[in-house]
Amino acid sequence: MQIINQKTVEVCFSPALINLFDCKGATIVVVDILRATSSICVAFEHGAESIIPLASIEETIKYKEKGYLIAGERNGEMIEGFDLGNSPFGFMENRIRGSKIALTTTNGTQAINAIPKDAAEIVIGSFLNLNAISNYLAEQDRNVIVLCSGFKNKFNLEDTLLAGAIVNRLRLNQKHTIDCDSAVAAEYLYLKAKDNLFEFLENSSHRKRLHKLHIESDIKYCLSPNQSKAIPVMRDGVLVNYKEKSE
Amino acid sequence: MQIINQKTVEVCFSPALINLFDCKGATIVVVDILRATSSICVAFEHGAESIIPLASIEETIKYKEKGYLIAGERNGEMIEGFDLGNSPFGFMENRIRGSKIALTTTNGTQAINAIPKDAAEIVIGSFLNLNAISNYLAEQDRNVIVLCSGFKNKFNLEDTLLAGAIVNRLRLNQKHTIDCDSAVAAEYLYLKAKDNLFEFLENSSHRKRLHKLHIESDIKYCLSPNQSKAIPVMRDGVLVNYKEKSE
Repeated sequence: MQIINQKTVEVCFSPALINLFDCKGATIVVVDILRATSSICVAFEHGAESIIPLASIEETIKYKEKGYLIAGERNGEMIEGFDLGNSPFGFMENRIRGSKIALTTTNGTQAINAIPKDAAEIVIGSFLNLNAISNYLAEQDRNVIVLCSGFKNKFNLEDTLLAGAIVNRLRLNQKHTIDCDSAVAAEYLYLKAKDNLFEFLENSSHRKRLHKLHIESDIKYCLSPNQSKAIPVMRDGVLVNYKEKSE
Repeated sequence: MQIINQKTVEVCFSPALINLFDCKGATIVVVDILRATSSICVAFEHGAESIIPLASIEETIKYKEKGYLIAGERNGEMIEGFDLGNSPFGFMENRIRGSKIALTTTNGTQAINAIPKDAAEIVIGSFLNLNAISNYLAEQDRNVIVLCSGFKNKFNLEDTLLAGAIVNRLRLNQKHTIDCDSAVAAEYLYLKAKDNLFEFLENSSHRKRLHKLHIESDIKYCLSPNQSKAIPVMRDGVLVNYKEKSE
């Protein structure tokens, strides 16, 4: 039995496909768990005031003299002259509290920029804030599209697993219907992987690539559910913590 | 231990993403199992001489007066004035033997047209010729990219399951390495679904849509592995049966 007017949840596997989805009035959950969206959640959990996601290194550097912490990576490596890389552990430091951060990353920012302008809201998802973001989505009376950043516009497993976890939470909540093959597939993969996400990703090419960068501890942390209650939401191009704003 | 120079197998979930893959020198397996690529395999199994895949209805109609059987569908329904729709059962008729067929379909033809011109070869895959096509791919010394036609450029489950089945066959054959997240995901989904493909697709939106068209028997047949030894290969824009050519 299907309830009339029930909202839907869909999953988009690549920023290059988001224009095929009806984003009008929907909440878009941007997912880039290794490591941009995980680090964003950590920053808000540790008291960051706001985060501006930016496409280019040049743009980001300009925020340095405005008193921002500047952060980011290219191909997984830190950028010379930046305050922070993209490791979640960097965003746990004392200087994060009350800070404004300008962040540039390879895949995450590009995903945000690809979202059609008629979307109602953009939020940030990671395993770290899985329950917080899922509960937030369930409370909203909106269609949900989980946008996986992927790797250079290709499908990747780690973002898909989080998408599947969110779909699974929304299914249990019963306020959204799952009527999209990508969402069905993502949920199956999550259910297969959930008991050992790290081991499952041993088979992922991106994970293998990241392995070469010696960030295994980052990856393990990014795969830990519910370390943060942050709900990063985009307001006029700037990410703020919905939770803190509403308290 | 990885063997140097081993060929790779990748999976592309949408024609809209194929330009992200390095197709140069690769064999591209076009997959649109409900129902175009299944019907193509059936036609060759029943003695068709050649099949021309075409984008438009208008183009296809012109082949009628050249003595071709004209076949195809739009949104799953037969086109007025055509000899055949897109049901695999239609391609089992006596008139198929020795025939030339012009075929237009919603998704499959568009997938073929999206393939970069530097690909070495285009072949056609379905569950019906799963072992035949997998053995053919294993014999070739080429990288393999399985291109899922999807549904209007979106990911779909049924094509992904066949992609996963092909990946699984190539893994067992050990001549190809699987170093692509899409291939890993497709194989997991196939292994989850393989004991009851039809039931698994109950959760697929495309299958639900097709259900409305009352083609359940078509779907069940299209999900039956190894009904055909056909190896449809593209030669100068025309599909022919490699098997028959080489015998």
